[in-house]
Amino acid sequence: MDLKQMNRLFKPQSIAVVGASNQVGKIGHTVVKNLLESQYDGKIYPINPKDAEVQGLKAYKSVLEVPEDIDSAVITVPASLVEQVVEECGKKGVGGLIIITSGFSEVGNRDLENRIVEIARRYGTRIQGPNIVGTMSNSNKMNASFGPFLPFPGKATLISQSGALLLAIDASTYTRGIGFDKLISIGNMSDIDFADCIDWLNEDEDTTCITLYIEGFKDGRKFIESSRVAKKPIIALKSGVSAHGAAAAASHTGSLAGAAKVYGAAFQQSGVVQASDLDNLFNRTLALSLQPPMKGDNLLIITNGGGVGVLATDAAEHSGMPLRFAPPELQTELKKHMPEFGSAKNPVDLTGMAGLEWYYDSIRYSFTHPWVDGICVLYCETAMTDPMEIARGVKQALDESGVKDKPIAVSMVGGERCTKAMRWLVDNGIPSYGAPDTAVNGMAALREYYRMQAMLKEPLETRREFDHEAAIKIIEHARADGRDSLTEIEAKQVFSVYGLNVTATHLATTEEEAVQLSTKIGYPVVMKIVSPDILHKSDAGGVKVNIKDEAAVRDAFRTIMTNAKAYRADARIHGIAIQEMAPWGTEVILGSVNDPTFGPTMMFGLGGIFVEVLKDVTFRVAPVSCGQAERMLGEIRGAPILMGVRGEKPRDRQALAETICAYSTMILDLADEISESDANPVLVYEEGKGVKVVDARIILKKK
Amino acid sequence: MDLKQMNRLFKPQSIAVVGASNQVGKIGHTVVKNLLESQYDGKIYPINPKDAEVQGLKAYKSVLEVPEDIDSAVITVPASLVEQVVEECGKKGVGGLIIITSGFSEVGNRDLENRIVEIARRYGTRIQGPNIVGTMSNSNKMNASFGPFLPFPGKATLISQSGALLLAIDASTYTRGIGFDKLISIGNMSDIDFADCIDWLNEDEDTTCITLYIEGFKDGRKFIESSRVAKKPIIALKSGVSAHGAAAAASHTGSLAGAAKVYGAAFQQSGVVQASDLDNLFNRTLALSLQPPMKGDNLLIITNGGGVGVLATDAAEHSGMPLRFAPPELQTELKKHMPEFGSAKNPVDLTGMAGLEWYYDSIRYSFTHPWVDGICVLYCETAMTDPMEIARGVKQALDESGVKDKPIAVSMVGGERCTKAMRWLVDNGIPSYGAPDTAVNGMAALREYYRMQAMLKEPLETRREFDHEAAIKIIEHARADGRDSLTEIEAKQVFSVYGLNVTATHLATTEEEAVQLSTKIGYPVVMKIVSPDILHKSDAGGVKVNIKDEAAVRDAFRTIMTNAKAYRADARIHGIAIQEMAPWGTEVILGSVNDPTFGPTMMFGLGGIFVEVLKDVTFRVAPVSCGQAERMLGEIRGAPILMGVRGEKPRDRQALAETICAYSTMILDLADEISESDANPVLVYEEGKGVKVVDARIILKKK
Repeated sequence: MDLKQMNRLFKPQSIAVVGASNQVGKIGHTVVKNLLESQYDGKIYPINPKDAEVQGLKAYKSVLEVPEDIDSAVITVPASLVEQVVEECGKKGVGGLIIITSGFSEVGNRDLENRIVEIARRYGTRIQGPNIVGTMSNSNKMNASFGPFLPFPGKATLISQSGALLLAIDASTYTRGIGFDKLISIGNMSDIDFADCIDWLNEDEDTTCITLYIEGFKDGRKFIESSRVAKKPIIALKSGVSAHGAAAAASHTGSLAGAAKVYGAAFQQSGVVQASDLDNLFNRTLALSLQPPMKGDNLLIITNGGGVGVLATDAAEHSGMPLRFAPPELQTELKKHMPEFGSAKNPVDLTGMAGLEWYYDSIRYSFTHPWVDGICVLYCETAMTDPMEIARGVKQALDESGVKDKPIAVSMVGGERCTKAMRWLVDNGIPSYGAPDTAVNGMAALREYYRMQAMLKEPLETRREFDHEAAIKIIEHARADGRDSLTEIEAKQVFSVYGLNVTATHLATTEEEAVQLSTKIGYPVVMKIVSPDILHKSDAGGVKVNIKDEAAVRDAFRTIMTNAKAYRADARIHGIAIQEMAPWGTEVILGSVNDPTFGPTMMFGLGGIFVEVLKDVTFRVAPVSCGQAERMLGEIRGAPILMGVRGEKPRDRQALAETICAYSTMILDLADEISESDANPVLVYEEGKGVKVVDARIILKKK
Repeated sequence: MDLKQMNRLFKPQSIAVVGASNQVGKIGHTVVKNLLESQYDGKIYPINPKDAEVQGLKAYKSVLEVPEDIDSAVITVPASLVEQVVEECGKKGVGGLIIITSGFSEVGNRDLENRIVEIARRYGTRIQGPNIVGTMSNSNKMNASFGPFLPFPGKATLISQSGALLLAIDASTYTRGIGFDKLISIGNMSDIDFADCIDWLNEDEDTTCITLYIEGFKDGRKFIESSRVAKKPIIALKSGVSAHGAAAAASHTGSLAGAAKVYGAAFQQSGVVQASDLDNLFNRTLALSLQPPMKGDNLLIITNGGGVGVLATDAAEHSGMPLRFAPPELQTELKKHMPEFGSAKNPVDLTGMAGLEWYYDSIRYSFTHPWVDGICVLYCETAMTDPMEIARGVKQALDESGVKDKPIAVSMVGGERCTKAMRWLVDNGIPSYGAPDTAVNGMAALREYYRMQAMLKEPLETRREFDHEAAIKIIEHARADGRDSLTEIEAKQVFSVYGLNVTATHLATTEEEAVQLSTKIGYPVVMKIVSPDILHKSDAGGVKVNIKDEAAVRDAFRTIMTNAKAYRADARIHGIAIQEMAPWGTEVILGSVNDPTFGPTMMFGLGGIFVEVLKDVTFRVAPVSCGQAERMLGEIRGAPILMGVRGEKPRDRQALAETICAYSTMILDLADEISESDANPVLVYEEGKGVKVVDARIILKKK
């Protein structure tokens, strides 16, 4: 990443405003006014072809006339003039351009957008936008946008693909009391995208949490790479999950790979916490921007009301952090700070009689207790207590505990006094929420973040040895044959190249060859027609199973050939596949798509009805490490089946995970060739006995 | 319901405060003060044994000394004095008692609680509480509680089982801007429970929506009965769904019937809308209290920002109301009120250029369009528009459209100006929310309410003819035998009494009898050991299937007997069941529990792995109508399997639904006898070919 130019763009010492104006209502007027009002302390150079002065500042006819260096230029002139301005900025050596102007790719004007990017690249200038609101930065006292004011100050930075939403969020930060250091509008992402921003924000000392509003990536892999190495929590709301993926698909996997699942997989493997909706994005941002990650599952809830305690308990279970009883010695200590009818189990119910002291004592003690991984403090407004006093007590207990590596969140249910107390808590670094469920969900975000970070520390799979050329050769043979898919035998050959254990399958073109191959493979065998023109082999009478001897092979060979010709007289017939008949095992499906955003992406699910009816599948962008593959096995609803149910022995999950790794290596290595693929079914045997791919399918990319 | 006394309790013309005091800090002081401050316009009679005057009001030594009638008495004296006070109130003819005092069943003091209820019943006096905050009513200007003020006024009434939460909610109604007419604290529900309140509120002209915070019912069936006939929306938040149901269960069904599922089923069949958490309870209450139900699925979204439009689209799909494209003629009209690059499809994107007029025109036109069932208006704060102006435009469009039977909700994302505009909208009867997802969820509540109301109009199943005595006789025979469960044959006999189609199964005590029965039933048959001491028949080598002739029957009879004796020498053996071998069908499971709250409750799921691993089951409280039974079939994730997958014909869903009805009749009729039961598997054949219960199990209630 070009850190220097990004720095000049996002933290400029000097800003030119191209199209700066004295005319109220013009965006070039608003931007200059906003920079002045936000008390930006760098230099501002209004660029205006006519006026000598703009809003009291000396103006220049062109950036080229400005005597000093310009770090960043906000461009507000009409789209038709932007090309020339970019050229001039390039010549001037401007670091980055904030192109507010719209009328580019968002209205189909792709060429113009490509041209300005080309010019900027020639000069090493970065582009933010076009079609954006601009950038707002509290730490820089810089409102380089047409939004009316800087956001409510805080430690998160929002990157938004929607300008309108960014503007609305800007205003709502004040009513919500959730603070941001920066709001960055990235619009068309002609040059700078989410990944670039993440790389830069990773080094930005004023940002503790990176908050994303995403409509769609251009380059999903770049995003994953940047997110994986980020040292700060990233939280994302992906919108538009209901539309995508409706296109016709040629494989099972293709038909199941919707945006929600593939983006979800990508977030999962790049350590990005997900938000379920806009409120959730804000609420989780608050926790992630203020508190350390939660390193274990032991959440302690301290409350003055049974009702909110129960609601928080439900929420904890719902968020995948079911509460556990506090250990006895912790309970004994907590019992000292509550009346007889209180409860020290968890939730710790101090009862409605709880005042400042009980809260203080129980929080302070619990926070230092090694069993406790995080605390959620709940408070119901009562007549006898002052919420602000409770808030101060929480803060004091925290400070005096000396603990800095465990998270805490507070919920206060009540009126204006609670709102004020919660504002005070947030100002003091403690996330606070109006409902107990929301506070617990904030803690869950801190837990998810930690879990994913731990996972990212696992080594990524190193590629194994395989013969790329051999695979390409098989594929080229099919292409030379005018086909855009491989036959089952070819697909299995490709699978074998990458170390997948496929059923021995060979092509017999004559009856004699069929007999020889059957003897070699060993009875019983399966026989299947091999024809690029017969896709549904069973329907054509082209499949015979459990063939036990030579006579049966001869008989099957003739029958299949006769059936195939009857089914379709002009079918090109390669011959008949003689295949080892694999013993029964648990059926699973592996598959891949070449996702338009993320590239080669793996799918795993249980076979048969599980995939067909329940769509019980999970995804990962390739490559998939063995650790991730194991997680995939645990993610489906039918996961217990692989653990052995109804008295069956556990299945060979390790072999299956390794198969997923190898498969992912294959689709990555052949990313330019394979469009979609399925291994269905894959039979999984009991522990130590491996897996066997019984049927295979590879659809090629059109070239 | 005793409407008259309930009226006197909740809308009293006169209130006595027993324990009224001049001493600040006493609850009896607070209640009198609150009644005065809320400007209660009925008569207040402080009851105090010593003071002649309380807070300027003439006081009496006892209610018996008050010369006029007393409608309602708030009781604040210590628990030990309550019994006497209730007696005096009874004598005085007080209509209802608001017993704030705690120290009853909630601390184990059940006897005292039972005694006061007994006294009150003797006099026809109703009791609210004990252990409550009291009642707050805006329409009555009555704060008969120790809570500091009446809630933010509105049209919903909250009934809360938690006093602390009610107090906290009271304060938070102001910060949330979500209004209530009444807050009713029902505490221990010694007499008046949720159902009583619903009955009464159903007639209360000041309440348009009944909002419930539930920890647990005493009598689930009474709740269902009251809710089913309510003419107003009821919305419920049930807390404590994570703890319940952990007790050991003797059947599949028992182990799957958790509080969340059974309460969820009860809400579903009584037309009660559910809330997922506290925020959701408030947000849905707002929509339900202000807007009519949504009668169809066509939700139109009108927005000035693409981003919030997409978020709303996602939320609509998530809420089970996926958006549809607006019909062409509607699009054509809408296109007139937006710029070229706007979209009229749905979401209708008026673009950021949208001002008052475009909003007004598009809302007014759409609202009268027959295709539109409801509208969600989204607004992102922009510099060029005034949120209040947009708000007024929405209201005006609504008023001038003349449409009153379609719902609308608004979301404004922005700052303080939006907050004010949203308050204004709420004041004018239009629910408004700070996030688009929340507004859509509010509309979804209105849709769910309508759907459930339509369902409640279906006739409830009338009971069929059956021979109750015959069933009891079978059960009594088992009880006489010292057993608390029926044998498979007995259970099938009971099932048959209620019209369930079971596999023909008869008991053979000798080899000869086995042969005779097999011939009668027809080969092939299944043979199973029948012994109250052998529960796991297969493990004991006690099951043989697919027995095709007499020789095989004889052989199986001897083998099973030998195996059974080897398995457990002292087992009591009734004989061997000879059973018709049913042809293959789709396996499902039916079952029942006698839920501690709701009584006889049905379960339905797909058999085998679906129930064992995926726990893919659904519940209904008996009786289950055929309409409800059909809904159950559609509710499980595996529902498509019954529609016919992989080329199979559709299953006989009608016969299955009828079987569920009949089963529910059985468990209701035998509610005093059956504790749990399973029919597992039940085989479902293709359409028109019915179902067959293959195995049956009935566990009796301990007597």
